[in-house]
Amino acid sequence: MNSLVDDRDVAFLLAEVHDLPALSALPYFADHSRETFELTIDSVRKVARDVCFPAYRPMDAAPPSLEGGAVKVHPEMHRILPRLVDLGLIAATRPYEVGGGQLPSSVFALATLYLMAANLSAYAYLGLTTGAARLIESFGNEALKQRYLEPMYSGRWLGTMALTEPQAGSSLADVATKATPVAGADHHLVTGTKIFISGGDQDLTENIVHLTLARIEGAPPGTKGVSLFAIPKRRPEGEALVDNDCTTSGVFHKIGWRGLPSIALTFGDRRDCHGYLVGAPHQGLRQMFQMMNEARLMVGLNAVATASVAYREALRYAEERPQGRALGDRDPSRPQIAIMGHADVRRMLLRQKAIIEGGLCLLIQASRYQDLAEASPDPDERARSSRLLDLLTPVAKSFPAEWGFEANTLAVQVHGGYGYTSEYLPEAWWRDQKLNTIHEGTTGIQSLDLLGRKVMLDGGEALRLLGAEVDATLGRARDAGVEEVWCRSLEEALGLVAALTAQLGKRGLEGDLEGMLLHSVDYLQLFSIVVVAWQWLEMAAAARRGLARGPLGSAFYEGKLCAAQYWIKTELPRVPALATLCREGEDSYARMASDWF
Amino acid sequence: MNSLVDDRDVAFLLAEVHDLPALSALPYFADHSRETFELTIDSVRKVARDVCFPAYRPMDAAPPSLEGGAVKVHPEMHRILPRLVDLGLIAATRPYEVGGGQLPSSVFALATLYLMAANLSAYAYLGLTTGAARLIESFGNEALKQRYLEPMYSGRWLGTMALTEPQAGSSLADVATKATPVAGADHHLVTGTKIFISGGDQDLTENIVHLTLARIEGAPPGTKGVSLFAIPKRRPEGEALVDNDCTTSGVFHKIGWRGLPSIALTFGDRRDCHGYLVGAPHQGLRQMFQMMNEARLMVGLNAVATASVAYREALRYAEERPQGRALGDRDPSRPQIAIMGHADVRRMLLRQKAIIEGGLCLLIQASRYQDLAEASPDPDERARSSRLLDLLTPVAKSFPAEWGFEANTLAVQVHGGYGYTSEYLPEAWWRDQKLNTIHEGTTGIQSLDLLGRKVMLDGGEALRLLGAEVDATLGRARDAGVEEVWCRSLEEALGLVAALTAQLGKRGLEGDLEGMLLHSVDYLQLFSIVVVAWQWLEMAAAARRGLARGPLGSAFYEGKLCAAQYWIKTELPRVPALATLCREGEDSYARMASDWF
Repeated sequence: MNSLVDDRDVAFLLAEVHDLPALSALPYFADHSRETFELTIDSVRKVARDVCFPAYRPMDAAPPSLEGGAVKVHPEMHRILPRLVDLGLIAATRPYEVGGGQLPSSVFALATLYLMAANLSAYAYLGLTTGAARLIESFGNEALKQRYLEPMYSGRWLGTMALTEPQAGSSLADVATKATPVAGADHHLVTGTKIFISGGDQDLTENIVHLTLARIEGAPPGTKGVSLFAIPKRRPEGEALVDNDCTTSGVFHKIGWRGLPSIALTFGDRRDCHGYLVGAPHQGLRQMFQMMNEARLMVGLNAVATASVAYREALRYAEERPQGRALGDRDPSRPQIAIMGHADVRRMLLRQKAIIEGGLCLLIQASRYQDLAEASPDPDERARSSRLLDLLTPVAKSFPAEWGFEANTLAVQVHGGYGYTSEYLPEAWWRDQKLNTIHEGTTGIQSLDLLGRKVMLDGGEALRLLGAEVDATLGRARDAGVEEVWCRSLEEALGLVAALTAQLGKRGLEGDLEGMLLHSVDYLQLFSIVVVAWQWLEMAAAARRGLARGPLGSAFYEGKLCAAQYWIKTELPRVPALATLCREGEDSYARMASDWF
Repeated sequence: MNSLVDDRDVAFLLAEVHDLPALSALPYFADHSRETFELTIDSVRKVARDVCFPAYRPMDAAPPSLEGGAVKVHPEMHRILPRLVDLGLIAATRPYEVGGGQLPSSVFALATLYLMAANLSAYAYLGLTTGAARLIESFGNEALKQRYLEPMYSGRWLGTMALTEPQAGSSLADVATKATPVAGADHHLVTGTKIFISGGDQDLTENIVHLTLARIEGAPPGTKGVSLFAIPKRRPEGEALVDNDCTTSGVFHKIGWRGLPSIALTFGDRRDCHGYLVGAPHQGLRQMFQMMNEARLMVGLNAVATASVAYREALRYAEERPQGRALGDRDPSRPQIAIMGHADVRRMLLRQKAIIEGGLCLLIQASRYQDLAEASPDPDERARSSRLLDLLTPVAKSFPAEWGFEANTLAVQVHGGYGYTSEYLPEAWWRDQKLNTIHEGTTGIQSLDLLGRKVMLDGGEALRLLGAEVDATLGRARDAGVEEVWCRSLEEALGLVAALTAQLGKRGLEGDLEGMLLHSVDYLQLFSIVVVAWQWLEMAAAARRGLARGPLGSAFYEGKLCAAQYWIKTELPRVPALATLCREGEDSYARMASDWF
């Protein structure tokens, strides 16, 4: 049985690396403790293993269908949803007053990681609902909150985010869905088409609430005229739910996430689709980005989870599959060895481990900043944590997506010819993973967000804060006896990032925006390598402390040190060459004309 | 309509880079000329575009089925096969006396590239047959040749290679299929099971000939006891074809190449499976490697083709898909621009171009060495070319497979959310591509072949020959006015490879085989980067010469120079860090124990 995620690693991050129990000192988390954190994670992981994972393969094999205009999801999903809802996941991090559990996001991330690893699609119905309901919680008026929060947070209704339109994928300035005010009424009439709406229709719940970007008639063009609406599939009128003129116009045949329908949705075919404005008009993009930023962390976590479950499978296969003999052993009368014995197989496994555990450590780091940004009583700490969270979000989204895809590819490769067949599971996770570099902002868009905004805001303040965080880690690492040469490698790389960022910032200030951003993806890559090296150094420090406590569990700590070494020796040395590309502005694709291809 | 492969690039490689028409000066190719080469390519590309490509999607959607013990392939395949056979492809490179066309392998590669890009599975039936028949042609006795060559080379019967067994994937020393001599007869009785046999059963032809590795009863263990047998599905007895006790015991559900069945095959369920020894006993592995080496070049070509067709699709999409505006343009009233206008999209496209065209150039280089190795009247040139071919084969197989997979992934990414759906084709080619890092020797095995054998043989003779070839290219590049800094970068990288190889060789000679080979995949990677940079410099020289001739076609040459620059500036600088890993023997995964993961 695949364990989905390494329990020991989760405990390590919780208690030895990120000290999440310390969060319970904050008033918002005061009812929690290490024990409640562990109990939560434990109850979730049990449902992940016992309920969600066994349904993964059947759900992948039989995706939702469109029948008579309505989407039918897999029967297993009808069984799973109540089990997930019973865990109280949708509102777990929300305040008590809206029915939530005031759980730290960082602990919530460690718990939901198991669900994502078990069955990405199944958990997504809930994750999407949390995001949608939070928008209403944050920006909606009292009437909206009264009407929507309880059914959504309790899982009776599910939610979606409806942003993308056929002519406007990444370009939200070009959203064309139209909202027409109705004199004296509490709603607008909405018309338009959205695509790629995950969970946009299903037969699981009596209602679905689409948090939708639309343009109020007469609004300014571009992003400044986009507003946020709640559009229920069936609108509450008195005690009844009335059809709200949302039509499923098609189902996309996705290559992964096949338990979750992705549909094309048309509003207002009969001019009877009511949309309820959330917050002030024309503020939709800013509001949506609250959800989007959390969604990006969720994508990162999805990616880590998908790589993790495949890695666990590859590990088991490598331990069990006999093939070949040790190098130089040409005696065919001796039994074959397990492929784990081949250096290159161990390389592939260690690379997966370094990516997955490094990515997870980063996500918990980012979620911890989120917890502090929202719940610290100290305004300075809130501001500092918020900046760090914003800075790390594009990395926490794109690193697990891009490198995680490589990890999933290696899990297929470890399985050899069998890995290329659907008799084995790695190919399914490999298909699932690919979406993560695309949705919620492609890797290219993350790179522009990082280099074009996040590191440049307020004169580079966020990067300075990051430098202080890394310094603190270096201090802990040196105290714990981590190799000095590893510490210096990270220091040098960070210095290089700072100098490079200043140079690129200067280029931008001088008006050469194209030149500044030409290598944004290379910049994102080198930045990610350094950030993950920082996390590995933090883990190495914790591992050294663990080893110092005695021989108990030393195998785990030794593995951590090997993976840290791998990352620092194999990935960090790539940084200078990437920085040169950014700095010198290698101009091949800048010069490349369309008809030269 | 997707053009599959860039015709201009094929003409460029044929006439301007590799001067293939010069091959017709060799007696074996004397009936050929530039005109016959071009006619051949032209007739093949027409069938690829008109016949094979339209069947690709239906064949991917409905893979072969096993019905009543027999495999039924897609109906389209029944229509396609005679068209391909009519082109005379199976024996195209073979001598006239066996019905062949004495076409150079390099020209043949450029022609079949189109078929692979159009429909990988469809062409594979023929490619496998060529390989199987060649083994009989090379090693079979007269009786075997008489019986098998004509029906196979004419396409009435198809062929397969049957190596892999459930307990012996990459470890051919552990082949257990048994061949028992029958006193006084021309055959052995064979029993055993093979897996992953491509084309191992089908309803296209009256017969299938399996070139099979088996162990003659009493043979020595290991690779020294493996023999090669021809095992027909139906054995010729007089004028009749008699069932030869080959049973299809299962069909694998591959995730790509879905037009070509991959089956589990059992020989001798009824103890009535006749196998015909090909060549001397116990020589099977050596013989099979003739076919395997050609098969590896074919895999490289498959990989280039699969990346090429996806790249052409991504190019077209990038030119046609409007999305967003230029950097800094925030005026939403202006129309959106085609995504080709975004630097990062051009980066993704140029990277694909650099990989695909660099890989193709290398494959034609290798095939040209093959032509010279087989047909040069000069024994020195034959020996030299043969060594260079052997040296380059692991690179020509694994580079297009590994980097080509990245190219296919980028083609999906360029398509955004649509790329993640099966409504669009890139995901299908992406699935197809993944097999190429696995079959005919995984990338790990290619890396051991390169570093453990090819560069070390005869005191590094092959690497010295390669150095001379690179020097000749550098001379041509300088004559043509290629940037001196590019030339020096390649010179330095090659010097680094030579020094590193010497150091690693010394480590091996001192008995530290593990240490020598620990970073074989990193070595393969850096070696590949350098070899492809050599090819890009050769193309840059030809492009400079083209530009010097005048403005005609300058867009094509400018594109070549941009791609050459991209490779030299982006990939070559990665070599030193990779070399450090190899040289210093970074030992994280060497130390990593099983229970540390």
